Amino acid sequence: MSTSYARRPVAGKPADTLVVEEPLEIRLNGKPLAVTMRTPGSELDLALGFLYTEGIIGGPDQVKSAKLCIDNPNIVEVDAPSVDAEARNFYTTSSCGVCGKASIDSVRVHSHHDVAGDPTTVSRHVLCTLPAKLREAQKGFSRTGGSHASGVFTTEGRLVIAREDVGRHNALDKVIGTLWQRNALPLTDHVILVSGRASFELTQKAWLAGASVLAAVSAPSTLAVDLAAEAGMTLIGFLRGESMNVYTRPDRVVDA
Amino acid sequence: MSTSYARRPVAGKPADTLVVEEPLEIRLNGKPLAVTMRTPGSELDLALGFLYTEGIIGGPDQVKSAKLCIDNPNIVEVDAPSVDAEARNFYTTSSCGVCGKASIDSVRVHSHHDVAGDPTTVSRHVLCTLPAKLREAQKGFSRTGGSHASGVFTTEGRLVIAREDVGRHNALDKVIGTLWQRNALPLTDHVILVSGRASFELTQKAWLAGASVLAAVSAPSTLAVDLAAEAGMTLIGFLRGESMNVYTRPDRVVDA
Repeated sequence: MSTSYARRPVAGKPADTLVVEEPLEIRLNGKPLAVTMRTPGSELDLALGFLYTEGIIGGPDQVKSAKLCIDNPNIVEVDAPSVDAEARNFYTTSSCGVCGKASIDSVRVHSHHDVAGDPTTVSRHVLCTLPAKLREAQKGFSRTGGSHASGVFTTEGRLVIAREDVGRHNALDKVIGTLWQRNALPLTDHVILVSGRASFELTQKAWLAGASVLAAVSAPSTLAVDLAAEAGMTLIGFLRGESMNVYTRPDRVVDA
Repeated sequence: MSTSYARRPVAGKPADTLVVEEPLEIRLNGKPLAVTMRTPGSELDLALGFLYTEGIIGGPDQVKSAKLCIDNPNIVEVDAPSVDAEARNFYTTSSCGVCGKASIDSVRVHSHHDVAGDPTTVSRHVLCTLPAKLREAQKGFSRTGGSHASGVFTTEGRLVIAREDVGRHNALDKVIGTLWQRNALPLTDHVILVSGRASFELTQKAWLAGASVLAAVSAPSTLAVDLAAEAGMTLIGFLRGESMNVYTRPDRVVDA
């Protein structure tokens, strides 16, 4: 696609590099299921993470193949013969996790993971080191100023994986889809960090991935807090410098 | 809904006010069409703006009634007997404008407005005054740190309307839906300003509303720039202080 306009600066202005946004069509068993506007890269991770965090597919044994369409790099074809997406009323599912669904009843997705029962703890000190590590991994952000990042860390503060995307939901789906392929879910004993706000959708995706701790650099919404409370997930917002707000399950955040 | 967790601070932390996020179901002619996660308020504006910027409804004469469901303030019922949304393949349409649609072909919505031919100009000086005016109108932001804003200004810099929402698309739909009800579209001779980034979806909504100038405080995406170029719309990014980047149709931005 053309980006000629994007890189044409006006007089006296430096050229800036823009975050690339292109549609990705996810096809399941030969039928179009959803389109998401995403930054190219990690297409299979994104598609598989999306299908998993929407509750459409279960474990890797359910998926026979996932591949980019030969003729069009903006289409991923997933073959999972045992899955009937239409019967499960996911035909209108969107990349936002919740929008695009036709009725409020279809918004909620059920998680199979017992997040509430996870005894994981993480120290305040480790939590405070995570945003800088994600930012360091988020090479694209400093270049474009337009992308979101999601990262998964161990409770000792080691970065396991980070991904970027123009859409916050896609960045998290890319991360979860990668770990799903590694059979590394649920994310007990780990922390998910997102670069922006914590919305209902991100919290639901984290729950589906079995994460016990979700931290956001910016604000959570009310519904995110309510959902985290229901899931028994530790939700942290405004994680900046030495400061954070712990909204739910503060018992997992320890001073040691 | 409960927000008890949201306002329970941890020891030594001040309570913070969270941006409220709740699902809104939009029903057209008695059938659920889409769900969007939004901040309560201006529900009818949001629903009508959504339906208009998705190309589902035309002018106000097409809509017989729009009202909140008596039993559930999270449902808007729009009655537009002459509109057949299913036949127009919008059943999977989402609040994101593009995601939730099942195939790439359904992403693009056709605008009836001749944006390219609009001779509107706006001065750099006026443009630089707009972010502060939007921020001033954006009362919720300083309270929660979690909401986006969209505003419409005259080319003389007068604020016509501003709305806020947890979702950037919703904020713009609320603005456009309000002006749609006033029969004030297309937005020739006006500037739309959005508080965050300029994505494909926001650019498409601005085009549907007939806006000739779209300005964003943060970065545009490549696809937003491509779409603006195709529409003949002036797209401005990084509008901050005395600085801005003009990506398309810079002839509308004048020094005078």
